[in-house]
Amino acid sequence: MTTETNDILSLINTPDDLRKLDISQLPQVCNELRKFIIDELSHNPGHFASSLGAIELTVALHYTFKTPYDRIVWDVGHQAYSHKILTGRKNKFCTNRKFKGLSGFPTPLESEFDTFTAGHASNSISAALGMAVAANLKNEEDRKVVAVIGDASISGGLAFEGLNNASTNPNNLLIILNDNDMAIDHNVGALNDYLVHITTSPRYNRMRYKLYLLLRKYGLISEAAKGSILRFNNSIKALISKRQNIFEGLNIRYFGPIDGHDVNSIVRVLNDIKEMKGPKILHLRTIKGKGYSPAEKSATEWHAPGKFDKDTGIRIKTDTSNLPPLFQDVFGETLVELARNNEKIVGITPAMPTGCSMTYMMQEFPQRTFDVGIAEEHAVTFSGGLAKEGLLPYCNIYSTFMQRAYDQIIHDVAIQNLHVIFCIDRAGLVGEDGVTHHGAFDLAYLRCIPNMTIASPMNEHYLRHLMFTAQAQNTGAFAIRYPRGRGVLTNWKCQPEMLKIGKGRKLNDGKDIAVLSIGPIGNNVQNAIKKATEKDISVAHYDMIFLKPIDTEILHEIGSNYSRIVTVEDGVLNGGFGSAVIEFMADNGYTPKIKRIGIPDRFIEHGSILELRELCHMDDDSIARLLVSEW
Amino acid sequence: MTTETNDILSLINTPDDLRKLDISQLPQVCNELRKFIIDELSHNPGHFASSLGAIELTVALHYTFKTPYDRIVWDVGHQAYSHKILTGRKNKFCTNRKFKGLSGFPTPLESEFDTFTAGHASNSISAALGMAVAANLKNEEDRKVVAVIGDASISGGLAFEGLNNASTNPNNLLIILNDNDMAIDHNVGALNDYLVHITTSPRYNRMRYKLYLLLRKYGLISEAAKGSILRFNNSIKALISKRQNIFEGLNIRYFGPIDGHDVNSIVRVLNDIKEMKGPKILHLRTIKGKGYSPAEKSATEWHAPGKFDKDTGIRIKTDTSNLPPLFQDVFGETLVELARNNEKIVGITPAMPTGCSMTYMMQEFPQRTFDVGIAEEHAVTFSGGLAKEGLLPYCNIYSTFMQRAYDQIIHDVAIQNLHVIFCIDRAGLVGEDGVTHHGAFDLAYLRCIPNMTIASPMNEHYLRHLMFTAQAQNTGAFAIRYPRGRGVLTNWKCQPEMLKIGKGRKLNDGKDIAVLSIGPIGNNVQNAIKKATEKDISVAHYDMIFLKPIDTEILHEIGSNYSRIVTVEDGVLNGGFGSAVIEFMADNGYTPKIKRIGIPDRFIEHGSILELRELCHMDDDSIARLLVSEW
Repeated sequence: MTTETNDILSLINTPDDLRKLDISQLPQVCNELRKFIIDELSHNPGHFASSLGAIELTVALHYTFKTPYDRIVWDVGHQAYSHKILTGRKNKFCTNRKFKGLSGFPTPLESEFDTFTAGHASNSISAALGMAVAANLKNEEDRKVVAVIGDASISGGLAFEGLNNASTNPNNLLIILNDNDMAIDHNVGALNDYLVHITTSPRYNRMRYKLYLLLRKYGLISEAAKGSILRFNNSIKALISKRQNIFEGLNIRYFGPIDGHDVNSIVRVLNDIKEMKGPKILHLRTIKGKGYSPAEKSATEWHAPGKFDKDTGIRIKTDTSNLPPLFQDVFGETLVELARNNEKIVGITPAMPTGCSMTYMMQEFPQRTFDVGIAEEHAVTFSGGLAKEGLLPYCNIYSTFMQRAYDQIIHDVAIQNLHVIFCIDRAGLVGEDGVTHHGAFDLAYLRCIPNMTIASPMNEHYLRHLMFTAQAQNTGAFAIRYPRGRGVLTNWKCQPEMLKIGKGRKLNDGKDIAVLSIGPIGNNVQNAIKKATEKDISVAHYDMIFLKPIDTEILHEIGSNYSRIVTVEDGVLNGGFGSAVIEFMADNGYTPKIKRIGIPDRFIEHGSILELRELCHMDDDSIARLLVSEW
Repeated sequence: MTTETNDILSLINTPDDLRKLDISQLPQVCNELRKFIIDELSHNPGHFASSLGAIELTVALHYTFKTPYDRIVWDVGHQAYSHKILTGRKNKFCTNRKFKGLSGFPTPLESEFDTFTAGHASNSISAALGMAVAANLKNEEDRKVVAVIGDASISGGLAFEGLNNASTNPNNLLIILNDNDMAIDHNVGALNDYLVHITTSPRYNRMRYKLYLLLRKYGLISEAAKGSILRFNNSIKALISKRQNIFEGLNIRYFGPIDGHDVNSIVRVLNDIKEMKGPKILHLRTIKGKGYSPAEKSATEWHAPGKFDKDTGIRIKTDTSNLPPLFQDVFGETLVELARNNEKIVGITPAMPTGCSMTYMMQEFPQRTFDVGIAEEHAVTFSGGLAKEGLLPYCNIYSTFMQRAYDQIIHDVAIQNLHVIFCIDRAGLVGEDGVTHHGAFDLAYLRCIPNMTIASPMNEHYLRHLMFTAQAQNTGAFAIRYPRGRGVLTNWKCQPEMLKIGKGRKLNDGKDIAVLSIGPIGNNVQNAIKKATEKDISVAHYDMIFLKPIDTEILHEIGSNYSRIVTVEDGVLNGGFGSAVIEFMADNGYTPKIKRIGIPDRFIEHGSILELRELCHMDDDSIARLLVSEW
C-alpha cells in the first residue's frame, strides 16, 4: 500500500485518531478501509463480503461513540474486520485467522474494544442489554452500549428473548440492525409512517425531513419493485416493512431504514439518537460485498471466498479434482440418493444449506427440504414433529451450533424416542474459525442422553453406510458426526451397506497395545501405527464406529487380552469416547492401563487443523510417540 | 361423586362420546369436569389453577376436532388435566403423578391423544408445525393440527422461532393462545381493528359481529381500566393489544381475543376457522383457577396448591416448623444476606422467582433482581453481559431448564471466563414431575466445559458456604447444584465460611471401602454406612463438594490406599461424577475396583423421590447392600 492511496488510514491507530478527523474525511477513511480489506483478503482469506458491507457503519460507530468506554457488541463478528483495523490491529491484520495471530472474530481476550465473545449468532442484544443495565445500576449512565445485529441473526430465539426483555429495565441500549438481505417493501406510506411516528428532539425532527429527502435522493424509496431473492423465505423480514413493526410493539423505539453506506448520514443519525433514553433500534440497509462488484453480485460465494485476484475478481481455486471429497458433499449427495428411494426422508438445516451441502437436496426435492433460518432449537423440535408423523428427518447442524438445541434433543426427540437423524457437521477441531466454532463437546454432551445412538465414520464410505443404516432401522435418535474438510478416499461413491448398530471393526492385529478410535482420526492412528511398527511395537487397532451403543464384544475382548489401551477421539477428553471405554473397563472389572488422546480441558484457539492437533497431541507423530513411550 | 352431579361426564370415555352431545350440553360437561378436578385434586395434589382455566378450551377442542386423528399439541401441559379426563383416563386420574400412575404431563407413552412430550415450555408451535407440514407432505390435508400455548410460554425463544417459521411452508396450523395473565388494553378501537382486518368466510363475518356483541355483553371490552398486576413485566404482552400485532406481521392470521370460558362461543369460532388454509392464531382470554374462587384470587398460590379442603378453600398445610428448610429458601435467604454486603450482586431468574425463592431478593433489592420470563438462553447471556461490566450475577435456573441455555453457558460465559454464579435448583431426581423435569444431566453436560467450577453442597451449611465462596473469589463460571425439597438441618443459619476451591472433606475413616459422594445424597451414604458397619464393613466416606476442579489430593490418597471404591451421585452415570473419578484413576495409573451409584442410562419416570431412588438403587438400603456385597 502506498501512502498516496492510504494517507488517512495510515494515521489511524486507535478510534481516538479517527475521532480527530473532520466528518468530511470519513468517506475517504471508508474507501481506504475497503481497499485495505480487499488487498489483505485477496491473499490472506477471511470473511469478505460481510466486512465490506459494514465499513461505513463501523467508521460511524467509532467516530460517534467514545469506544472503548462506550461498548460496541458485534453479533457473529463476520463483519468486524474494519473494527479490528480501526482499533489498533491494522498492523497485525496480516495474521488474521492464523495460529497465534488475530482471531477472525471479536474476542475480549484480544482487545478491550472487543466487548464480548462473538461467533454464535443472536447473542448481542442480550449481552449488550446486560451491559446497558449494568451501566444504569452502576450510575454510569453516560456509557453508551450498542449491539450490532444482522437481519439473519435477529431471527434466532435468543435475539427475540433479548428484544422481548429490552424495555423491561431502565437502559439506553441502541440496537443497530445491519440489514443486507431484505426484500423491503419500500412503499412511501410505510416508510413515511415510521418517520412520522418517531418523536424526537426538534433537531431530530429537522433531520427527519432531511433524511426523508435523502432517502428519496438515493432512490431508496422508489426501490420497491426491485425484489431481490430472499436467502431464506423468512417471514420475520416482512415485519419491518409493514405497518406491524415488531420493535415498536416491543417498546423499542424504531428509526429507519436508512442507507448504511452513507457514512456521514449514519453519523448524523447516531448523534441525534444517541442521547435518547430507553432502548432504540436503528435500521440500516447495507449491501453485502459493498464496493467490490464481484462480491456484490454473489454475496454467498464471496462470504468467505478464499484467495482471489483483486483486480480481476477471479477466485484462485486450486485443482481439487484429485482430492478426496468434502465430508459435507458426501453427506449432501448421499442424502439425495437415499431420498430418491425413501420418500419419507426430509432434510432440515438451520441457515446452513451451502455450508452443509443440503443444497443438493434442496435442488432435487425442494418440497422436502427446510431451511429454517438461524433457529437451531426450532430445527430440532420441528424435526421431532415431522418424525412423530412418520417422516424421516435428516437434521444437519454444525456441532458447535447443536449446543443451541441441547434441550430440544433431550426433550423433543430422545424422551419420546423419535426417529430423527442428526447429521453433525464440523465436529472436532475446525481450524481457523477457532474457539467459538470447534465441535469439541458433542460426544460428551450427547453420550449422557438415553435413547441416543451416536456414531462417527472413519471415512466417506462409512458416512454413507451410517446414513443408509440410520434410515433403514428405527433406532430413535441417531447422531452421525463428521468433521470439517475432506475425507481420505477419492473413490468414495460406494454402494451403501447396512451396518450392525453398535458394532465396531478390527483394522489391525497387534499384541502390545490396543488402540480404540472413533471417527476420521482413526486414519491418523493408522499412520501412527506404521511409525510405531517401525520401532517394533505391535499395535491392534479398532475403529469403534459407534460411541453408543458401544461395542461391548470388542471391549470384553480387549479388556481380557490387553494390559495397555489407548483411546483416540477428536473431541474433549472429559466425559467423551475414552471416558466411555474407561467406564466399561471399570464396570466390568478389567484393570488395564488406559491412555486417552483427545482435546484437553481448555478452550482451543484458532489455527490450521494440523497446528491445533499438534497443540493437543492428537497428530500422527504425537500418537506414535505415545505408542512407543514407556508405560 | 354421585351420578346426579356427574351425569354427563360419567358417560364420556373418549372424545367420540363427547362429540355425540349437543352443543347445548357442553357447559354442563365443563361444570362437571371442573367439579371432578376440584374433587380429585383436593386430596391428590397436582397442577390446579392452569387446568381449571383450560376446561372450556379443552372441551371445545375435542368437540370440534376429530382427535386423535386431528392433533392437539399442549405446551408445558400443566393445563391438560381435562384433556386427560376426556381421553380415556378419567378412572385412572386418581393415580395422577403417582409412581406407575398417570403422568402429570401429556406424554405419547401414555395415550395416542398425547401427541408430543410436554413439560418444557415453548415447544408446541415448532412440534405442531412439523406435524402440520408432514400432513401436507403426506397428502393428509384433512388432518388438523392445533398447538395450545400460554402467554408465558410464547415469550420463549423457541416459540418465536416457531412463529417465525409458521408461514414459510404450506400448512394449516392453528395456534391457540391461552392468555390468562395479561393486562390487555381493551380499547374498542384496537379490538375493532382486529375484527375488521380479518377477512374470512361470509359465515365468519356474520359471527364476527355476534362475537363483538358477545364480548360487549360479557364486559370484556369495558375491562380496560381493570389493570391486573403482570406476573412479570414482559413487554411481549403489549404486542397483542396494540396496533402492532406480531402474529399478523409474521403472516399468521389472527383472531381474537375472545372469552375463553364461553365454551359454545369457542366451538363456533373453531368451526368457523378450522377449514381455513394457512397458519392462524386464536387468542383466548382465560382466568387461571376459573370457577374456584380462592384460586381465581391467587393463581400463583394455587398453581400447585397441595391438598386442600374443597369446601372452605383452605389449603391443608402440615406443620413444617420443625423440619429442615427447603434448599430453595436457603438459597433465597442467603442471597439476600450476601447482597446486603456486596453491592455487585444481582439476581436473575427465568420466570421462577417463587419456585427458586428469588422472591426474597426481589423484595429487598427490586432494582437488582431480574425476572426475564421464560427465556433461559437470555437469562444466561444477559448474566454474561452484567458480569462483563463487573456485576456479580447469581443466575438461578432449574437443572432441567438449564439444558436450554447450554450454548450460552459455553459461548457467552465460559469462553470469556466471566464470573457468573449458576445456582442450579431441582438438580437430581425431582419426583412427581417426572421424566421431563429430572435434573439428571447437569453434572455430565457441565463437566466437559472448560473454565467451569462445579460444586454441590451436602447440606444447607455447605450451600451457604459455596454461595459465599463463589462471590468472594473470581473463579469464572461457578455452578452450584442442589436438589428439590428439604435439606437435613433445622439449625441452618450458620456463619458462611470460605471454602477452598476444589477441596473435599473426609467424613469417615474406614479401611475396607472408600465412598466418594457429591451433594446431599452424601447423607444417604452416611445412613448406608451405619448399616454396613453393623455388618462389620469399615467404610471411609469423602464428601467431595467439588466435581470440578476435583480434589486430586483426596483422589491420590484413595487411589493409593483402597482397592475398592464406590462413587455416589444424584445424576446420570454416563460422564458424571463417578466417571470423573474413574478417569482420574486411569490417568494416574491406579487400578482399584470402582462401583458407581447414580441414575442409569434411561429416562426415569415419575413417582416420589424415594420410590425413584429405589428404582435407581440409590436409596440407603441399596447403597448399603452394595457396600456389604461381594466384590
